[in-house]
Amino acid sequence: MAKKRPILGITMGDPAGIGPEIAAKVLAMKEIYDICNPLIVGDARVMNEAIGIAGVTLGVRPITAVSEATFTRGTMDVIDLHHVNMEQLEYGKISAMAGNAAFDTVKKVIELAMANQVDGTVTGPIHKESLNLAGHHFAGHTEIYAHFTNSTDVAMLLVDGNLRIIHVSTHVSLREACDRVKRGRIVKVIQLLDRACRQFGIQSPRIGVAGLNPHASDGGLFGGEEKAEIVPAVEQATAMGFRVDGPIPPDVLFSLANGGFYDGCVAMYHDQGHIPFKLLEFIWDNKKQRMESVRGVNITLGLPIIRTSVDHGTAFEIAGKGIASPEALLDAIEYAAKMAVSRA
Amino acid sequence: MAKKRPILGITMGDPAGIGPEIAAKVLAMKEIYDICNPLIVGDARVMNEAIGIAGVTLGVRPITAVSEATFTRGTMDVIDLHHVNMEQLEYGKISAMAGNAAFDTVKKVIELAMANQVDGTVTGPIHKESLNLAGHHFAGHTEIYAHFTNSTDVAMLLVDGNLRIIHVSTHVSLREACDRVKRGRIVKVIQLLDRACRQFGIQSPRIGVAGLNPHASDGGLFGGEEKAEIVPAVEQATAMGFRVDGPIPPDVLFSLANGGFYDGCVAMYHDQGHIPFKLLEFIWDNKKQRMESVRGVNITLGLPIIRTSVDHGTAFEIAGKGIASPEALLDAIEYAAKMAVSRA
Repeated sequence: MAKKRPILGITMGDPAGIGPEIAAKVLAMKEIYDICNPLIVGDARVMNEAIGIAGVTLGVRPITAVSEATFTRGTMDVIDLHHVNMEQLEYGKISAMAGNAAFDTVKKVIELAMANQVDGTVTGPIHKESLNLAGHHFAGHTEIYAHFTNSTDVAMLLVDGNLRIIHVSTHVSLREACDRVKRGRIVKVIQLLDRACRQFGIQSPRIGVAGLNPHASDGGLFGGEEKAEIVPAVEQATAMGFRVDGPIPPDVLFSLANGGFYDGCVAMYHDQGHIPFKLLEFIWDNKKQRMESVRGVNITLGLPIIRTSVDHGTAFEIAGKGIASPEALLDAIEYAAKMAVSRA
Repeated sequence: MAKKRPILGITMGDPAGIGPEIAAKVLAMKEIYDICNPLIVGDARVMNEAIGIAGVTLGVRPITAVSEATFTRGTMDVIDLHHVNMEQLEYGKISAMAGNAAFDTVKKVIELAMANQVDGTVTGPIHKESLNLAGHHFAGHTEIYAHFTNSTDVAMLLVDGNLRIIHVSTHVSLREACDRVKRGRIVKVIQLLDRACRQFGIQSPRIGVAGLNPHASDGGLFGGEEKAEIVPAVEQATAMGFRVDGPIPPDVLFSLANGGFYDGCVAMYHDQGHIPFKLLEFIWDNKKQRMESVRGVNITLGLPIIRTSVDHGTAFEIAGKGIASPEALLDAIEYAAKMAVSRA
C-alpha cells in the first residue's frame, strides 16, 4: 500500500467549535494535495457553512464511501454523516447534539482506518462537556481511540518544533502517576517515541528520560523511583539499542530538548510534559485578553492506526467568526502524512 | 532605618566558581551605587584575582567590620574572611576547602543581617558537593538560612520577567510533595507572595494558584487535593482580602502568568514551578554545547532577613575565564534593594 499521497480522514470535530472552519481553511490550501489526499469526515452542511465562515472558495462533494472521493483541488470530499441538526447548531455552545455528532465522526474515522480505507486519521477539536452531555463518558480522543481499536498500551506524544514529548501516564492523579512509573512502561514508551521520531525523519533519535522527583532525586535523597524503575528502564532500553539518557532532572531536560540536544523526551506524568509544551505553545495576549494558540500537535502512539490531532481545543469564544488559525491542523496533517508514508 | 541606598551584603559564593568574577563585574558597574551600598563578603585575595579575571578596574579594600566600609565607586569593600587557601584554589574544581570557604561566607552574611549591620543579603552560587565534602550537609542556601535564622516556614520564590513563582514545597520527593499540599501552608505562601509582589512595586497583585493534579483534577476526576486543600485555601485567602484565583490547571497557569495575566503563581511542588521557569531561563546552545543562563533570581521568603540570589549555579566549566555574565547577579541585587527600601 505504498503511496506518495496517503488518504487521510480528517474529522470536523465539534460542529459548534472552530474545527469545521479550520478544516475548510486547510482544504483550501494548495499544498495540502501535495502531501496527502484529504477526506473530511462529518456533516456536509456544516462544512458548507464553514467554508463561508472561513471565507474560502471550495465546493463540497458529499459522499458516503471513500471510493467515491476524487481528491480534486477546489472541492472538498466529505464523508457525510448528515447528523447535525442545523437549526439547533449554535457556535460556541455546549450541547448534547453537537457532542453526539462529534463522537460519531470520531467513531466513523476510526472504522475507516481499521478497514484500511484511509491511511491515517487527523482529528479536529471536540468538547468534553458536550461529549459527556451526549452520554459518551470518555476523557478525550485518546480514550475513544483506545476503546474502539482495543488498544491497551497507548501513549500521548506532543510535538512542536524541537519538542517531542511522550508521557508515561496522562489523565490520572499525581499520586497514581507516581505509582505508574514502572520499568516496563518506560521501556515501552521509549520504543514508541524512537519509532515515531524515525517516522518523522530523524535517523538516530537521541532520547532524554526525565526523573520523577526534583533533581531526579539527587542520588536518592528525595524519592526512590529513579533507582528502582527509571535507571533499570534506561539500562534495558540502552541494551536494546536505543540512544537514551536519564534520569535527567526534570527542570533541565526540556531546556536541553528545546535547544536541540534531545530529539525526544520521556515525561513521567501529564504536567511534567504539558507544562513546558504549553508554555511555549499557548501565548496569552493580555491586551486582547485571550490565548493565542496556533501550534502543537498531539499524536496517539500504540494504536494499530495513525492518529494525529491539533493540541488546542474547540475555542468556543471565537468559533463561527472565521478568525481561527489553521496552522496547527496543517501541522497535524503533515505529521499524519509522514507517518503514513513511512509506515506504508 | 529608612535609606535610599540600603547596605547589601553580597557573598562571593564558591571561590572556584563564577561567583567572584561576576561580583567583580557588577561592582564595576556605575549604576550599582545608585541602587545600593554594596559590600562583598568573602576573601579579599580571591576578589582581587577575580577583578583581573573579569578585566575590570577596581581597587580592593579589605575590611573587618561594616563600619569601615566607604562605599566608593571604583573600590570594592570586602569583609575579608581571609579563609581561602590561594595555592590550593583551582577554578572549576570541587574541594572541601572551597566548600568550607563558601559556607563560612554565607554564615557571615547571615550574621551581619541578623545584627542589622546590612539591610539585605545577596548570595553568589555555591556548589553542593564541595559543601558536603566540607562536612556541611545542607541542600542549599535556603536550608542554611533557615537553620541560622531559626526559620521554619520559609518558601522559595523564583522571579524573572513576568514570572514570580512561589513553591509550597521544594526538595522533597514527589510523593511527599503531594502530602505537603495543605490548606495552611498554601495560605501562608499566598501571604508571602502577595507581600513580596508589593515590595517589588506591584500595587494589587493578582495571584494564580495551581492545582496539584492534571487539569486541576477536572472536578475531582483525578485526585482529591484540589477539593480538600486548595479550594479551601483559596477561599480563606480571598476572605483575608487577597486577590487570588485557583486551582488553575497547571499547564495553563504559567502561560497566563508569562503573558501578564497573573502577577504571581503558587506552584504546588518543586518541578511544577521550576520546569516553566527554567525552560525560559536556561537556553541550551547546541552549537557551543553549553547552557546559557543569565537570568533568574531566587528569593527566600519567610526569613527575618532579606535574601536574594542568582538562580544559576557555579558554572565550573567556564569559571576563571572571565566570560560569565553578571546580569542575574545585577537582577538579584536590584530585587534585594527594592525589598530593603520597601521594608525600611
